Amino acid sequence: MRIGVIGGSSCSGADAALARETGRVIALQKHILISGGMGGVMEEACKGAFESGGITVGILPGEDEKGSNKYLTAALPTGIGAARNIFVVKASDALIAIGGWYGTLSEMAFALNIGRPVVGLNTWKCSINGRDAELITAVSAAEAVEKAVKAASALRRYDL
Amino acid sequence: MRIGVIGGSSCSGADAALARETGRVIALQKHILISGGMGGVMEEACKGAFESGGITVGILPGEDEKGSNKYLTAALPTGIGAARNIFVVKASDALIAIGGWYGTLSEMAFALNIGRPVVGLNTWKCSINGRDAELITAVSAAEAVEKAVKAASALRRYDL
Amino acid sequence: MRIGVIGGSSCSGADAALARETGRVIALQKHILISGGMGGVMEEACKGAFESGGITVGILPGEDEKGSNKYLTAALPTGIGAARNIFVVKASDALIAIGGWYGTLSEMAFALNIGRPVVGLNTWKCSINGRDAELITAVSAAEAVEKAVKAASALRRYDL
Amino acid sequence: MRIGVIGGSSCSGADAALARETGRVIALQKHILISGGMGGVMEEACKGAFESGGITVGILPGEDEKGSNKYLTAALPTGIGAARNIFVVKASDALIAIGGWYGTLSEMAFALNIGRPVVGLNTWKCSINGRDAELITAVSAAEAVEKAVKAASALRRYDL
Repeated sequence: MRIGVIGGSSCSGADAALARETGRVIALQKHILISGGMGGVMEEACKGAFESGGITVGILPGEDEKGSNKYLTAALPTGIGAARNIFVVKASDALIAIGGWYGTLSEMAFALNIGRPVVGLNTWKCSINGRDAELITAVSAAEAVEKAVKAASALRRYDL
Repeated sequence: MRIGVIGGSSCSGADAALARETGRVIALQKHILISGGMGGVMEEACKGAFESGGITVGILPGEDEKGSNKYLTAALPTGIGAARNIFVVKASDALIAIGGWYGTLSEMAFALNIGRPVVGLNTWKCSINGRDAELITAVSAAEAVEKAVKAASALRRYDL
Repeated sequence: MRIGVIGGSSCSGADAALARETGRVIALQKHILISGGMGGVMEEACKGAFESGGITVGILPGEDEKGSNKYLTAALPTGIGAARNIFVVKASDALIAIGGWYGTLSEMAFALNIGRPVVGLNTWKCSINGRDAELITAVSAAEAVEKAVKAASALRRYDL
Repeated sequence: MRIGVIGGSSCSGADAALARETGRVIALQKHILISGGMGGVMEEACKGAFESGGITVGILPGEDEKGSNKYLTAALPTGIGAARNIFVVKASDALIAIGGWYGTLSEMAFALNIGRPVVGLNTWKCSINGRDAELITAVSAAEAVEKAVKAASALRRYDL
């Protein structure tokens, strides 16, 4: 399965540790880690997965690898800047959001919009007219991955 | 100037009235109305602008005009589905969000992510770790358009 | 109907005259002119249409109008550079190619790939293993527009 | 380095053999194979690389893996159909085109448009006003990969 990890290109030490552990769990369970391929939460998640022998894909904003992290099995330039967030979501069966700012919020919202499950760890809360966005919440990396995989499995309409 | 109006493809009567009036004000001030070109808030805003002699552009999700509203000066198919939301934002100098659901939230977040001002009318509230997203709020169509134009004017880094 | 006019951002005097006249004919027949919105063939076609009272849409490569021509009813930034060529094609019911270079060839090929008719005026010739690409050829602006409209009409699978 | 292999989703036996060998050479030289991830030339190239222990990335047209080939290290859905060809090109430092039809031509043209080297094996020939497109030609898989890597190396403006 492909699990996307989204979050800020800079992050707190707590979010860094969560991202690193999330990447590690994703790799140990033989899932592929999808991310935006840059620094912060993206880098920590990739490092955790890469150092555990996992496959990591970075869907990059630029025309080349400049600024991408060093823990990518495949670093894929798109040349479309922040619009590449769309493809991080499209490439993921489920997403785990850790902290982040507007870029992360745009990925969370786009994922919800196209029906991809989103598990939130210490991230955005959104509501409209008293109704909350349907975020799955978790308090640990292990719980986040478990819930992401479970939610994506329930949705799969095709056989591999 | 190009003002994007974003919101649900179905909406409440209150949001419909707000959208219609917002489109009307945009047209009367000779701005171009950008939208996703479909029903609900998009249709009401386009109707308000179109019937006031304004120019309306619909950036459509499908391969053709199917499902688009009847008040578009230019109906532009993209064939990329919900991902076209990115281009509704890119084509707008500022955006006015009215009600809506996840698609609208994704447009609001993407706009904030790339620095396009967003004025909210009866729409999403988002916060992370107690910090709110920088939405401009308004209580009327006239106030929303005035604030959107003012915010976009302050940002323009180029001459026409 | 939406007719796309594609060609180089700089062009010969002969191509400029053809583009200008093509835009004029499109406008006089009340069709909408779609283009990449920049200079050369794009600008000449837009000028011909705009000065004849037509509606012209420019789907721009940049984040703003910088470098776009002055004859656009709607100038729409995309921020994705040359990749915006895809959307010039998607937004057009048929395309007319005048001269051009690689960008134009990419639009011609993408249009053929998704089944949009392409009329060529003094432009690329392509073949593989002795088989030619299915380009419609014309020798004048009037003939090009007539053939583009006819080909697109034959394809329309929907009612407006 | 990332080498894109582009060609038809169905192909002749000769093109299949060329694609298979091209993938094998790419993998043996430790390059990453980028493709559209579907059948025909894409599948043969991926099979050649995958069975030689290489890393293969498929940038898919659909919302999920349906129809993708079985030799992908990472199968990445985009949900934008043929428009995903743009990202096959953007993700590749150089491309090798084998046979193909309009989709392949659009990738070749887009690559030339943004300055990515294209090596052609038994594929399109294009010219305008007697001037040929700047395709690098090769007569074998080994020669194609060698020329693709050499051309891309000459262009790299960044350090990994």
